[in-house]
Amino acid sequence: MTHDRIRSLDTTHRGSVATDDPCYVVGVDIGGTNLRLALADGNGAIEARWACSTAGLRDAEVVVQLIKQGVEHLLAQHPAANQSLRAIAAGAPGITDVEAGIVIATSYLMGWRDVPLRAMLEEAFDIPAVVDNDVNLAALGESWAGAAKDAGDFVFLAIGTGIGAGIMLNGQLFRGASWAAGEIGYMLISGVPDVSAKRGEPGALESMSGGEGIRAQWQNHFRPESNAPADDLTATQIFDRALDGDPPAQALLQQTAVALSRAIYNIALVLNCPLFVLGGSVGMHPALIDATRAALATLNMRTPPRLLHSVLGVDAQLIGAIRLALLTAAVSGRPPIL
Amino acid sequence: MTHDRIRSLDTTHRGSVATDDPCYVVGVDIGGTNLRLALADGNGAIEARWACSTAGLRDAEVVVQLIKQGVEHLLAQHPAANQSLRAIAAGAPGITDVEAGIVIATSYLMGWRDVPLRAMLEEAFDIPAVVDNDVNLAALGESWAGAAKDAGDFVFLAIGTGIGAGIMLNGQLFRGASWAAGEIGYMLISGVPDVSAKRGEPGALESMSGGEGIRAQWQNHFRPESNAPADDLTATQIFDRALDGDPPAQALLQQTAVALSRAIYNIALVLNCPLFVLGGSVGMHPALIDATRAALATLNMRTPPRLLHSVLGVDAQLIGAIRLALLTAAVSGRPPIL
Repeated sequence: MTHDRIRSLDTTHRGSVATDDPCYVVGVDIGGTNLRLALADGNGAIEARWACSTAGLRDAEVVVQLIKQGVEHLLAQHPAANQSLRAIAAGAPGITDVEAGIVIATSYLMGWRDVPLRAMLEEAFDIPAVVDNDVNLAALGESWAGAAKDAGDFVFLAIGTGIGAGIMLNGQLFRGASWAAGEIGYMLISGVPDVSAKRGEPGALESMSGGEGIRAQWQNHFRPESNAPADDLTATQIFDRALDGDPPAQALLQQTAVALSRAIYNIALVLNCPLFVLGGSVGMHPALIDATRAALATLNMRTPPRLLHSVLGVDAQLIGAIRLALLTAAVSGRPPIL
Repeated sequence: MTHDRIRSLDTTHRGSVATDDPCYVVGVDIGGTNLRLALADGNGAIEARWACSTAGLRDAEVVVQLIKQGVEHLLAQHPAANQSLRAIAAGAPGITDVEAGIVIATSYLMGWRDVPLRAMLEEAFDIPAVVDNDVNLAALGESWAGAAKDAGDFVFLAIGTGIGAGIMLNGQLFRGASWAAGEIGYMLISGVPDVSAKRGEPGALESMSGGEGIRAQWQNHFRPESNAPADDLTATQIFDRALDGDPPAQALLQQTAVALSRAIYNIALVLNCPLFVLGGSVGMHPALIDATRAALATLNMRTPPRLLHSVLGVDAQLIGAIRLALLTAAVSGRPPIL
């Protein structure tokens, strides 16, 4: 796939027009805990969904086999798509070379290194395939059909187990010279440990504002000593407690929000970016966005960015994958749909 | 000036070809202490220079009058250019709306607010004019004829009194949604005060790594108490002392380099940028680049960026202005030279 073809995948066409020739695509979201698929028509409308667990799964071949099972299931549900499947796009939880179609590295959870996922998918399905980083796809989804429609420049912040950013500049995904733009979990902001983390371990910012980091902070610094050791809350459970007025949980929420606001501030200084969209299971928590907005307001910014929740929620990556698949179908020489 | 026209100013043409029709342009570097002009031919070769002091000068009308004097002087030296002056480009030390031709805000030294510099220059010279931020122009200069030739993505770090960045992405200047991309002096990195500075005051990063900040650090924390209070060294003098083996100066150099390396690390995480070019009077000091490279090497980076000195040095802004003037001449309807 040429560089020009990749660039053309990011064109700013916002709509899509189905021709008489039917067109379907599959979007795939490969997560650390779940694999989710959707079949969509040429307008991006989802016709059918399929999902399964990926907990403990590390083998890319097995993941592709699961995707194959899922696609067969989707086509069985929607036989009209059988002869009209034009492209498949998959988001992977790691740094992904979109041009080469290779997942360079995922986090310790899956442990992928240099997996030629695009070739594996093209072999499995004999249709054009494309792969990208999942947070990039979430940004693409929000830009196409979510909180960032018509936003030329914005940053999608995915806060789940860790924290990562998808960056859209001038209406195009900005992926960086070696496909690692937005890997902000390691950011060295004031108030976090000033030693950079080893690769594969939670980074400095992540250790304060990512789901696993928040959980560890609770265990090690915030949980009342009188509580049982088994009081192992998740980040969202801790934030629920904060909303209920629990002081230690509120203190940890505040620490998380201050760290996140400083990361947003630093990114906004570099990019002068007017919009940040918070997504991911932790990022979607209502307590976090309110506390982060309040923390941002205490910083002196010439043009403070807006902070919005993801509109697509857990579907952001999947819808971004559908969008990328539609763009891929449009440039693949099959009947154009855009 | 339309948005498309601005975008076209950033085209990636790397050379320029003079036609039979002679073409000259003027580049202007409006600094806090000096005003510098150069007359260049259609290939960007500098034919003549002129400079004067701007110390204490705040009035934009007076600056334009000085530019007029300078241009008259240049044309007197080079009469052939008299009928062939095609465009003038000026870099201003502040946030600049290139589309509207307005300098939105400079630092406290000049105190400009919403100065319509392009219109003032076009009225003064009756030729197409364009204005931009000086650090952006330095990046453009380095990209055209300096340390970053053929670099699609790089960041120019200007470290003088303060610190700012010019960002080139995909071979184009990235200026940000409200023209303030790269205003990194306020970055909140670990190890610096975690209170954001008021606008117009040195920012958090700047207070550690900018020329004025380094000077203040020396006075307040590093200067040996036995020294006379009059021992008011500049940042470059302090770094000279560090090279001579003076322990307090070496400690301050180290602190500066660590802060700078963290800023570079944070920017590289966001942009995945493979090249940083250090410029400005403090940034050009040989002790700083070595110490910053060493500090960067202690951080665990997947793809550590290269760190290079500016090749154009004090001329970076001026040569960037010439480049922008040539691009302006090329799109202005006058005989094309590119």
